[in-house]
Amino acid sequence: MKACILYSGGKDSSLMAVILEKLGYEVELVTVNFGVYPSFKPAALSARNLGYTHQVLEAGQEIIHKTTEIILDDGYPNNGLNYLHQEVLHLAADEYSIVADGTRRDDRTPKLDPSQIRSLEDSKKAQYLNLTGFGHKTIDYLSKKFFEIKKELTTVNNNSDYEIEIRYLIDHLRGDGTALNIFPEHTQSRVLGWRENE
Amino acid sequence: MKACILYSGGKDSSLMAVILEKLGYEVELVTVNFGVYPSFKPAALSARNLGYTHQVLEAGQEIIHKTTEIILDDGYPNNGLNYLHQEVLHLAADEYSIVADGTRRDDRTPKLDPSQIRSLEDSKKAQYLNLTGFGHKTIDYLSKKFFEIKKELTTVNNNSDYEIEIRYLIDHLRGDGTALNIFPEHTQSRVLGWRENE
Repeated sequence: MKACILYSGGKDSSLMAVILEKLGYEVELVTVNFGVYPSFKPAALSARNLGYTHQVLEAGQEIIHKTTEIILDDGYPNNGLNYLHQEVLHLAADEYSIVADGTRRDDRTPKLDPSQIRSLEDSKKAQYLNLTGFGHKTIDYLSKKFFEIKKELTTVNNNSDYEIEIRYLIDHLRGDGTALNIFPEHTQSRVLGWRENE
Repeated sequence: MKACILYSGGKDSSLMAVILEKLGYEVELVTVNFGVYPSFKPAALSARNLGYTHQVLEAGQEIIHKTTEIILDDGYPNNGLNYLHQEVLHLAADEYSIVADGTRRDDRTPKLDPSQIRSLEDSKKAQYLNLTGFGHKTIDYLSKKFFEIKKELTTVNNNSDYEIEIRYLIDHLRGDGTALNIFPEHTQSRVLGWRENE
């Protein structure tokens, strides 16, 4: 049984991949790209270092343009990110019957609500899986156990989250530095590979 | 790292055990008993057939008496079951720093809400894990893959859910057959052991 994991190179989506692999799924890590900026590269590198198959799912620019519009209208990213995440899951579910991501219990955005999950599964005859059964302490423990991780400030060159292409587009539309008001700098945990004993 | 899984012998809690074992936890299956009826026996048998350590956690009768009171007052089981489940998790978290159960995404009762989870984790300095990242289709697929399962009508002799002792107590207090109005008969999936190829 093949499972697609929406993959950023971070510890949450990496852990989801490990769990599904251990349960016997044929794991395929997938990073969506909207053709705005090649932000999939760090995720592809993490996937390669873990030895997993990695695919770039190319999406049209319509979704990211609408996302950016929502975010600029709102002045904050949550609604836009939720919209984008839902669209991406629907795209992935066109290609895979099992679609997973690293959403965990304490994540707020992006996160599908129960009716959005039902809609995704019913409309695409797909199964959606995530990490909402686990909290951050458990995920921190497990990701330290399995992965070599680098904590670092997020830049356009070390991160494959949706926000990289959104930032790029916002700065392109509104001038350099605009995106920083909406997405403040933050520290990320990037997976470099397996820990030696794993 | 030792993890306690509240265990009924059903497919959900059995699958939670498999996942945690595969992630490297030392798994201990735990069935709570209130001293009303030895309903832990089917769970102990399933655990033994899977080769997992099984413990009976003996709780005082206070919790089940209060549960039964709530259920008889309400005329339906949901609030009572939620109360009991929460109390049981707190008891387990006195003994174990990692406490899990087989609650899945589409379960309604018993289920902790987010603030109850925070309260459990904070007051006991514990980690709580469940299966809410997975829906019933995924759990059906995985449990068929791993386990030999028997579908059968629930009786006092083949089930270790909380409701068995509650039924027993209600019939004891209100006369035989009363409990059947509150907990209708239903079909369960009991884990007999591993599938041959697992």
